[in-house]
Amino acid sequence: MEGMALNAGGLRTLPWYVVCSQVLGVTCVVITGVWMGHYRGGYAWDGSAQEFNVHPLCMVLGLVFLYGDAVLVYRVFRNETKRSVKILHALLHMMALIISIVGLVAAFDFHSSAKIPHMYSLHSWCGMLTFVLFFLQWLLGLGFFLFPWASAQLRSWYLPLHVFFGLLLLAMSVGSCLLGITEKLLFSIMPTYSKFAAEGVLANILGLLLVCFGVVVGYVVTRDDFRRPPNPEEEALSVHFKTLSEGEIPSSP
Amino acid sequence: MEGMALNAGGLRTLPWYVVCSQVLGVTCVVITGVWMGHYRGGYAWDGSAQEFNVHPLCMVLGLVFLYGDAVLVYRVFRNETKRSVKILHALLHMMALIISIVGLVAAFDFHSSAKIPHMYSLHSWCGMLTFVLFFLQWLLGLGFFLFPWASAQLRSWYLPLHVFFGLLLLAMSVGSCLLGITEKLLFSIMPTYSKFAAEGVLANILGLLLVCFGVVVGYVVTRDDFRRPPNPEEEALSVHFKTLSEGEIPSSP
Repeated sequence: MEGMALNAGGLRTLPWYVVCSQVLGVTCVVITGVWMGHYRGGYAWDGSAQEFNVHPLCMVLGLVFLYGDAVLVYRVFRNETKRSVKILHALLHMMALIISIVGLVAAFDFHSSAKIPHMYSLHSWCGMLTFVLFFLQWLLGLGFFLFPWASAQLRSWYLPLHVFFGLLLLAMSVGSCLLGITEKLLFSIMPTYSKFAAEGVLANILGLLLVCFGVVVGYVVTRDDFRRPPNPEEEALSVHFKTLSEGEIPSSP
Repeated sequence: MEGMALNAGGLRTLPWYVVCSQVLGVTCVVITGVWMGHYRGGYAWDGSAQEFNVHPLCMVLGLVFLYGDAVLVYRVFRNETKRSVKILHALLHMMALIISIVGLVAAFDFHSSAKIPHMYSLHSWCGMLTFVLFFLQWLLGLGFFLFPWASAQLRSWYLPLHVFFGLLLLAMSVGSCLLGITEKLLFSIMPTYSKFAAEGVLANILGLLLVCFGVVVGYVVTRDDFRRPPNPEEEALSVHFKTLSEGEIPSSP
């Protein structure tokens, strides 16, 4: 098919998309750092508003940037063994989880000190749901794919669900960050937000860049000709690899 | 593969997912109607806050529920001709667009009357971006797939992009609604929102249900064994159908 030929040479463009995602991700982390550091009084760990400022930085770094990079490793490290890439995938997700937990503790600590009720807002509901599902997904991923506990049948049944929920959770992470940005701006600068205050414009731009990061990562992992090719040697060497590779050809992004 | 067999019988579950999506979608529209009708003073078209109330109702009905249903038609109407389903897909999207435009006009009218600046918030930036991309996607969809202007090569190149942006825009529509819910609650009931006021809890539940609707629609259209099977007769009858069917086997959800 001629049309497919237009897509077939696309693998050469993969590095550009990966570079683009990293520039976007780092920019998001830097803007969040500047927003909280410059406009919101910096960082502390004493129950003050400065402790709260740790929360957005950790969530953007952990639940968006590192999470997105963990999703990307299967496309970036195409020639390494599947097992090495799986371990890197699990480790990056573990780092994302730990940093997210620090971010969650910062928000709860600040609420407790300031006598603000916990978990009343849509941001907190969506953010907590995202975190809990992410933790479950990580545990299930370990149990099904990294350790030899699950049968081959169960693994190939779970793989498409793992992939679907992986991308869903990236979208939910970005969405929860955008809800957090809106909440923070309306709590902090409601009178000047509608006058296009610099802080509000910066935070809005952060929101759009977070969406762009999610879109680029989502595009890279769902594009057909960016898929990791099945490796016949790995498949012959190990039932473990074989099961995953077979399952992944039709199902993973 | 045994694992694939676990998924293969899944087509029987498709009607349940579709029913679930419709129950969620209708519930979202009803809750939005009750929220604006009961808690926010009802509806009008006179530049007042009651005119603003038309905005959330139109956006949830048009950009989420009808948009999601337009995406679902390729899975629901599996035995109708591809052309009929494409026309239904385009018509539902057109209804979604018209209702969204009414919703946008309601918000801009209210802002003008109340002398509130337009387009300063992250919700407005994300919502407008979603609407503009949706309108472009609709125009491109008409030009590429419904009318015979584009070559077969261009069509099969564009199809995966159309599918990717279709799902992305569903996620962005849901996300924009959640941002709007957060904004509306903080503008209207900030002092009681943190005390779990009934209106706040209802709107939070609406947010979660909108996410659930998006998740169910997204799951149905990306699940491999829910795909529309290629129809050999259609493919033999028309190059138009043939091109689309060929392109769709590997690329569409």
